[in-house]
Order: sequence, then structure tokens, then C-alpha cells
Amino acid sequence: MTTPPLVDTLLVNIGELCTLAGPAAPRRGAALREVGTLADAAIALADERIAWLGPSRDAASAVTLKPDGLLLDAGGLTVTPGLVDPHTHLVFGGSRADEFARRLEGVSYAEILAAGGGIHHTVSHTRAATREALVASGRARLARMQANGTTTLEAKSGYGLDLETELKQLEAIAELAAEGPLELVPTFMGAHAVPPGEDADAFADRVATQMIPVVAARQLARYVDVFCEQGVFSPAQTERIFAAARAHGLGLRLHADELSDLGGGALAARWGAASADHLLCTGPDSIAALAASDTVAVMLPGTPFFLGMSERAPARRLIDAGVALALGTDFNPGSCYSESMPMMMTLACLHLRLTPSEALTCATFNAAHALGLADRIGSLEVGKQADLVVWDMPSHHHLAYHFGVTLARHVIKKGRLLP
Amino acid sequence: MTTPPLVDTLLVNIGELCTLAGPAAPRRGAALREVGTLADAAIALADERIAWLGPSRDAASAVTLKPDGLLLDAGGLTVTPGLVDPHTHLVFGGSRADEFARRLEGVSYAEILAAGGGIHHTVSHTRAATREALVASGRARLARMQANGTTTLEAKSGYGLDLETELKQLEAIAELAAEGPLELVPTFMGAHAVPPGEDADAFADRVATQMIPVVAARQLARYVDVFCEQGVFSPAQTERIFAAARAHGLGLRLHADELSDLGGGALAARWGAASADHLLCTGPDSIAALAASDTVAVMLPGTPFFLGMSERAPARRLIDAGVALALGTDFNPGSCYSESMPMMMTLACLHLRLTPSEALTCATFNAAHALGLADRIGSLEVGKQADLVVWDMPSHHHLAYHFGVTLARHVIKKGRLLP
Repeated sequence: MTTPPLVDTLLVNIGELCTLAGPAAPRRGAALREVGTLADAAIALADERIAWLGPSRDAASAVTLKPDGLLLDAGGLTVTPGLVDPHTHLVFGGSRADEFARRLEGVSYAEILAAGGGIHHTVSHTRAATREALVASGRARLARMQANGTTTLEAKSGYGLDLETELKQLEAIAELAAEGPLELVPTFMGAHAVPPGEDADAFADRVATQMIPVVAARQLARYVDVFCEQGVFSPAQTERIFAAARAHGLGLRLHADELSDLGGGALAARWGAASADHLLCTGPDSIAALAASDTVAVMLPGTPFFLGMSERAPARRLIDAGVALALGTDFNPGSCYSESMPMMMTLACLHLRLTPSEALTCATFNAAHALGLADRIGSLEVGKQADLVVWDMPSHHHLAYHFGVTLARHVIKKGRLLP
Repeated sequence: MTTPPLVDTLLVNIGELCTLAGPAAPRRGAALREVGTLADAAIALADERIAWLGPSRDAASAVTLKPDGLLLDAGGLTVTPGLVDPHTHLVFGGSRADEFARRLEGVSYAEILAAGGGIHHTVSHTRAATREALVASGRARLARMQANGTTTLEAKSGYGLDLETELKQLEAIAELAAEGPLELVPTFMGAHAVPPGEDADAFADRVATQMIPVVAARQLARYVDVFCEQGVFSPAQTERIFAAARAHGLGLRLHADELSDLGGGALAARWGAASADHLLCTGPDSIAALAASDTVAVMLPGTPFFLGMSERAPARRLIDAGVALALGTDFNPGSCYSESMPMMMTLACLHLRLTPSEALTCATFNAAHALGLADRIGSLEVGKQADLVVWDMPSHHHLAYHFGVTLARHVIKKGRLLP
């Protein structure tokens, strides 16, 4: 008879444990609903990893808690993997709250842009901000993400549109990542907008030939993202940037088919991008191409909600076609000022007609896939990283059902209970 | 020269103080936007009331903090009156999370009702619950309201539909009110639905002649509310119940014109009801009648959002006509499971096209009017009760702009900083 392994933390009396355990590939179709629930469960953590999980009654014989270990009673509540947010614009200067108010007073976005507002406002405030200021505001946002159950997130640059500011944003992201406890996946998005007065072709070239080599050499980004859209960057310009990113060993993501169908979904799939995001206007060719690829389609329902748009991403058509779906906040000052993944799960159910179980898969396992991290996070399985949340709710259905309030009771990251 | 008065609490360095000060009447039309902001302000509290407020630099000469008093630095953040939620179904048994999930899986509400779900589910679980269980779940909900800045709320019975359970709900509300720290205004809503198999006329009579006298004699409610709707209670049945309520000295509220226009707004105005709530389908006659009355129109934008309805209350038409508007959560298990007033402010801006300032007036001063409490709460003025919130934001615009996360940093109720 072997001695039960020693563990650092034992979490018992879990009413509903959603493991998200299953095959290593991103979940598609009906598999999106299989969140792997165990009733009356326990989970044991050792050395930042999951050592054991199973029925509560088996815990005592399966593992031994270290004398100075932490025994946590989940009080019959729900436990899920830490949420993964695969699309955020975490770091920027300024706020667009006054613009939000002015638009509700009837001022058009065109008038706001003409008066130096809109994205120009964020770019100028980000350029003017010190790195320290970007880190400080980013830290407050990360705290709100953590309070709402996010343990890993992607974070993009893209409010500099010049090399110096883009590097400053990426350095702020690197500093926040080093500081922890949340994990950040950095993305370089110099091609977020065309700077006023510049030629899109020339600027795309500059991103490809002058910015990406520096970002890659300084190891400040894991991915490159492009806003491929009418009046922003064309598919050809996107491919020019993608080619440079690939040549420098960086992964690819794409703001695709958000406001018009430029075949961005198919372009992302063809290039083997990790994700194609937004997709409000994506068409059948892109849906078919995505279904045949490992590119994850990231739904961002907070954006059309916040902008008052009636368009919705064709989530059910994507699922039915076999596309791997994920969910993100698109946290940013202009079109979605919310750090909450549970809020996005509610919107995914109400506006994209996902079920609460599908929304959970999209916010954990498939989101981890969208960041290339599913071998380590996104599900609760022995050997995987101990990132999990104890939710103040009797079942994971409440994650979407109970909205607008903060419901994470405990957040555990790499085996450590966060304060 | 007089000695500055002694105060218990002094809050300094307020970046934006929204006083909502002004005339005593409910705000209408353009006055809804005047939230009375002071920059770089301070506020002093004594004996549960506001002793002084003004520019930060004047505080030291205007008041003297008691030796054991609390000096709080607001760090340049925003302070508003405590939020007032004039419409909640706070107390009930069970949850409808599984119903929410089943509906997203394609099951119709009719099928759910036929299987004993919907409101029947909540009624049977509320009947089966002990008073202690209702108090315990109510307490957790109040904590979430407090965390989101609510300091006073209305709470309805209405999931008993029999005298015994209605009294149990009202007793639970009374116990929670006695416990504090939030103030609860109790409403008897026996006429929330017609019990299965009963005749609406006969049940309305029972509410009027058998329930209201007992509720009034036991002083368990300040208001009576009726769901006046096609297939629920007719205007004539509503008036029968209103007459009984008035005869017993109780105030009136009305679920009016939510799903069809029965002239509920006009009925509420004619009876001098404190509020007419929902009003999604209300017509020009009701709008004119409300404008000529002191009845407050309570917008509940969380409900059509949660139910996926496209109908919206005609908030702008109501404002333009001169109706006094307020905002509430409609917190309940079936059609709006959210305790957050800031979430409702976001929805009021996005879906009803209120400005953030209008939404703040609707969530404070006018909501206090809807509960008959505006002489004491809803604005920050010398002599009024010290109910206020320090928000983690630079201006009140963020209350609507920054959504889905909890942003109340400090909540003060009757002069006491809540833990």
C-alpha cells in the first residue's frame, strides 16, 4: 500500500466541481456543453499543480494534507477553472467616460472624432502617460479581473501607433506580468488604427519592417494582432504584417469581420492564427474555413452591447459548423469598459444564445486554447496548473444567470489562495 | 466668532461630489441632468446626518472633528448619495438558474410553466422555505446590494399567494430591516399572480378583504402593489385592491403596462400611487396622466434585457412629457437576477438612452421620492441622513460607463462606515 501524497491545499465540500476535463483539442459542437461536473467533490493542490480530485469522501484516503497546509471548506459552492480572458486592451491612458456621456446627449461619434476624441483621445493620453502610470491603472484593472474570477488574460498594445509608445505599453504589460499574480499573454497590436494623416500601406509596412523586429528582438510579445477592416487595414496589408510576425517567430491573432465581411475569418484560418476575434459580420466561407482549422473564434459580446449595435456574432452557426468558440471581454476604453468575464457569459447567453455550460467552456478551456496554453490551464485535471475559483453559487448556471455582481469567493492561482 | 461644530466623520479630498441638492419635488425634464457636482469637496457627518459640505479647503474652518472621529481621504474619487432601489422582490425561496439554462437549450416558457416551473417554482419553494431560510438568503442579497452602493431599497412579498406565506415573507423583510444596516421599505404584493385554478376576481377579493386587513393590522407593509396585466389582474380588480389598501392607510404602487397597455400608468396617477413601474407598453394617455401627477415612473431595464425582449420603456418620451422618472433593479429570480443598481444605470443609458447624470438622479433622489423618503434620503444636503458612497472612479459618468464590476469603495449608512 502506497502512502497518500502530501499536498499543500485541500478544498473539500465542493457542491459542483466543473473540471472541463476531456480531450486535449479545443471543444467543438456538442462537446462545448460538457463541462464535466462532479457533485460533492474535493480537489487537492501541490506545488502549483492539481494533485488529485474526486469525491469528497475519498479525499482523506487519497491525499495527506501537510501539517502547515490549507484546508478550505467550499461550503457546497461551485468550483471552476480560473477564467481565461483571451482578448483585452488592458493598458492605456485616459478614459472615455465623458465621450460616453456626450454620445448619450446626442453628439455623434464623427463629431467626437473630429474634436480629437474617440481612439485619438486614447492614443494621445497613452502617449502622454508614463510607464509607471500605465502600470498603476493596469494593476487596478487586473484586481477587478481577479475579483471576477479571471486568472489568465491576453493584453494588447495598440494605443501608441508609434514604436516608442507601443514598446512602453508592452513594457507595462511585462511589468504587470512579472508582478503577478495573474498571468498575462502579451500581444503587439501596432496595426490597431492608421495614425491620422498617414497612408495605411506605408504604416502597415512600418509595422512589419520597423516595429515587429524590435518587439520580437526584445521578446515583448507572444502574438501580433491586426485590425483587418474597411478603412483600417486591408487583407493584403494584414498578410504583409502576418508574414513579418511569422518570420520573427510570433503567433497571430486577428480582429476579423467585425464591421464588414472582408473574409477575415478565412484569412486567420489560412495563416493558422491562434484566434479570429469579433466576427460579427463573418460569412459562410470564413465559417467553413475556421471549422476546418484550429483557429479559435473569440466572441466579444460586450462590444456590440456597449456600442448599442444590433449586430450579433453568429455564434450558433459557428458552433453548428464545428468552429471552436471562446469568449473574451474586449476590455477597452472606447467600446467595452468591463473587466468581467461573468458579465460576458451573461451576454453570451442572452445575445448569442449560448447555454451557460457552453459559455463556461468558452471562458475556460477554449479560451486557454486561443492563447496556446491549454496544455497547462483551462481545465482541472491532475498535473495541470492549480488555477481555480470558488464561486458563491450552487451551480455554474449562476455564472450567466446572476449578473452585474461579483461572485468569486476565492481565487486560487498557481496553487496559492489570492488575498 | 462661533465655534465650528463637532463632527463624527470628515470625508475630504473628494474629486467629484454629486449632491443631488435642489428643490424638494421629484426632478423632471432638464432637471434630471442636474446632479449638483462640486469639485475638490469635503463632507462632514454628525449624529447620522450631514453636518456640512463644501470645498475641501474650507473644511478645517467649518467643522471640528471629534478626537475619536473618523477622517477619511477619498483620494480624489467620486461621492454620491447612497443608491435607492425602489423595486425589488428581495425575499423568495429557490432559484431559477436551471430554468434559465433550459430556456437557452430551447425549452419554451410555456413548457416550463406546464412542468411546474416559472413563477410556480418560486411560489412552491417560498412556501416550503422557513422564515429563517428566507432571512438568510435575503441577507446575502442585501450584502451584494450594499457592495454595489445601495443603501435603501423597497422589498415586496408576492411569492406566497396565500396569507400565511405572504406574512412569512413580510416578517422576513421586517427582520432584515431590523437587522440593518440597509433600510427596507416593505410592500405587500399578494396580487402578484393568480394562484393556479383560482378565479382572478375571487382572489382579488380575497387579497382586498382577507389579506390587506391582516397585513395592515400587523404593520408589516407600507405599500400595496398589484400586477395589473392581461391575464393577471384587470384594472377593475386593481382598483378593488387599491381601495382596500387606501382604506387601511397603505400607500400604492403598480406593476403597470409591462406587457400590454391597460392604462395602468393613468390608473396609478389617478389613485395617487407612489409609483407606476415597468411601463414598457404605456401609451400617451398614461404618459400625460403621470406627467400631471406626483406618481414616479420606475424604469426597470434589467427585465427586458434578461428576458431578451426588444420592447423598451419610452423613457425619453416620459422625460420630455415631464414625468418624474426613477430606476430600480426589479431583482427577482425569474426575470432579473441582479442586485446591482449601477448595472441598471448602464442598461438605462444603453437601452433607454438616459445620460449618466439622468441615470444617477433616477437612482437616488427620484427613487427616494418613489418611496416617499425624499425628505430624508436621496440627496446630500445639510440636515439630511448621511447615506453616501465613495466610488472608485473619477466622475459619476463611470457609474454607467464602467459596467459589470463592483466599484463602491466605501458605503456609509446613517453616518456609519459599513464594513
